[in-house]
Amino acid sequence: MSDVYAARRARLRERCAAAGDAAALVSRPANVRYLAGAAPRGAVLLLRPDGDTLLCPRAPAADAFDGRPSAGLRLTVLPGAGDPAVAAGVLAAATAGSLAVEEHHLTVARHREIRAAAPRLRLDDLGRAVEQQRIVKDEEEIGCLRIAAEIADQALNELLESILVGRTERHLALELERRLVDHGAVGPAFPTTVATGPNSGRHGHLPSDRRVEEGDFLSVGLGADYRGYRCLIGRTFVIGTSPAQWQIELYELVFAAQRAGRETLVPSAGYRDVDRAARAPLEAAGHGERLAARTGHGVGLEIDEDPQLAPTAMGKLDACVPVTVGPGVHLPGRGGVRIDDTLVVRSEADGGPELLTITTKELLAL
Amino acid sequence: MSDVYAARRARLRERCAAAGDAAALVSRPANVRYLAGAAPRGAVLLLRPDGDTLLCPRAPAADAFDGRPSAGLRLTVLPGAGDPAVAAGVLAAATAGSLAVEEHHLTVARHREIRAAAPRLRLDDLGRAVEQQRIVKDEEEIGCLRIAAEIADQALNELLESILVGRTERHLALELERRLVDHGAVGPAFPTTVATGPNSGRHGHLPSDRRVEEGDFLSVGLGADYRGYRCLIGRTFVIGTSPAQWQIELYELVFAAQRAGRETLVPSAGYRDVDRAARAPLEAAGHGERLAARTGHGVGLEIDEDPQLAPTAMGKLDACVPVTVGPGVHLPGRGGVRIDDTLVVRSEADGGPELLTITTKELLAL
Repeated sequence: MSDVYAARRARLRERCAAAGDAAALVSRPANVRYLAGAAPRGAVLLLRPDGDTLLCPRAPAADAFDGRPSAGLRLTVLPGAGDPAVAAGVLAAATAGSLAVEEHHLTVARHREIRAAAPRLRLDDLGRAVEQQRIVKDEEEIGCLRIAAEIADQALNELLESILVGRTERHLALELERRLVDHGAVGPAFPTTVATGPNSGRHGHLPSDRRVEEGDFLSVGLGADYRGYRCLIGRTFVIGTSPAQWQIELYELVFAAQRAGRETLVPSAGYRDVDRAARAPLEAAGHGERLAARTGHGVGLEIDEDPQLAPTAMGKLDACVPVTVGPGVHLPGRGGVRIDDTLVVRSEADGGPELLTITTKELLAL
Repeated sequence: MSDVYAARRARLRERCAAAGDAAALVSRPANVRYLAGAAPRGAVLLLRPDGDTLLCPRAPAADAFDGRPSAGLRLTVLPGAGDPAVAAGVLAAATAGSLAVEEHHLTVARHREIRAAAPRLRLDDLGRAVEQQRIVKDEEEIGCLRIAAEIADQALNELLESILVGRTERHLALELERRLVDHGAVGPAFPTTVATGPNSGRHGHLPSDRRVEEGDFLSVGLGADYRGYRCLIGRTFVIGTSPAQWQIELYELVFAAQRAGRETLVPSAGYRDVDRAARAPLEAAGHGERLAARTGHGVGLEIDEDPQLAPTAMGKLDACVPVTVGPGVHLPGRGGVRIDDTLVVRSEADGGPELLTITTKELLAL
């Protein structure tokens, strides 16, 4: 793997050089990890023509690097409590006239400290260059996401075989997270959501002490972190043998919207077109005002990455971009439905979108 | 509780006015929560002489506010995907000439967007004014920390009654987190640490698949989040009936250092003096190079707050400041000991430091 990181850094260095910056400072942890193979707490990465340096506030754990450290990457542990970003600025000033920093991550206070420590260095904005580079995944990254999705599917399927009525949202969420780890996840990809009855279908609901009751909708959102890569699956079930008519209708509506979104996932489809495909059926049914600001988003080293699948998003999908598609409708006081998958965009020649989260999307009555 | 928040905001407004700023923008989530009673995701708080506004990117959950919203706090939900900080800047420009922002939290990019949206508004630095205000807790806050500590003690004590040999660090950590929630925590205060054998005593160790073995040191660090307030407890045990001589000696050394640190916790003791008291015995025993940069820190709405108990920290303790005291020594390849408590600084007249985490610090052989 180590040459992968060196190649990624070379690509970023080229991009910086083309923009007139000889050096770049990467501080956002997921970006550091993408380029260095590890992001020890507080570490920043300095790219210069004469070599790359990972500056760490303390010695990283022996197993921080997946296998051996990346080729050509120097590791510097800072003595004392100095800020690695400031030390990087001083280092950069020694060999470069300008330094591109991640202005969307660096705080105003740190930016000022770098300026004070290296007053003759010009600070430019690196922008979201690394985030852009992260959008299209290689097959090794997709392999990690595939395993992460398998783990989440396993955890969810085991839960469905257990007795649910009478258990609290909080306990079901913890149980799912334990099962994720049982099956090999480093941990959950994000805080697991379990929402019952009137809570069901609510975006970002935090598990409460409400217990599962007969007749409830039960919506679940979970994901696994496998070697840093994070996926997402969301499903909604009914509790008891006979769903009410409104539940069946709402489920079918959201399911149709989610399928419409999934079917648009081909290379060169616009981000906004995926959103539109999933949003239109829900708007047509009168739920427009209740919808989330977006239908899905990229996943990878973070659970919420570029691209954003939203009405005003600019840009087009490429092959090998993993995204979520997860519309939902929540009716206040009654509950609702969310159905969420992680898929990889593939060309039609390659068989079309690759579904990573394969748990059934039939309306199961549990 | 709501008048508590209004009083806190009034204090901050006074401080800003004294510094020449008519308005302040609070963006750091724990600070928003401290002043508004809730911090819905992405929300920022704008303080102005004519009233305070919580700007949220979407409607907060019905139960976001603990009881009723704070007196005199206006809630504004922003339409679309606008940045609440930028909207706050525009609002502030309408009635004030300057706005103090949290430069240690705001990114360079957001700062620039506020400037662009409100070009005539002078942006000043609020600095860590709210963090400073949060250091001394009221009795209601200490009450929450006391319950959080009780929950952590309960979870830890239950674990000690179970069979440990053969179980992995990861599973023990998950089990502890489940028990925290069982006993009423919102969740863990921070990722639970379980470190066995050669990993034991390592600061910030992430639970691995290593299993507990006879003869191991087992060090555990956990905490509960109760109504937003977070405590911390760390303990080290030995597995098996007869600890080795080196284990007994190392344990007694760290225990003596931790006690020495605890005993200095009186009002007007210097932050660095607490650190010195706990650090000196470990340095005298030849472990100086292996010690963490600090011995403890404040706790509250965040698990790591001001003050910092470190060699170069400036400042003195006040009554009603909750802090952790947790020195540790890790011997590479062998393991080590950490002992960590959460205590509240109290005057001698009030009985001296109040120990919140009461699990025994005898060397238990499990």
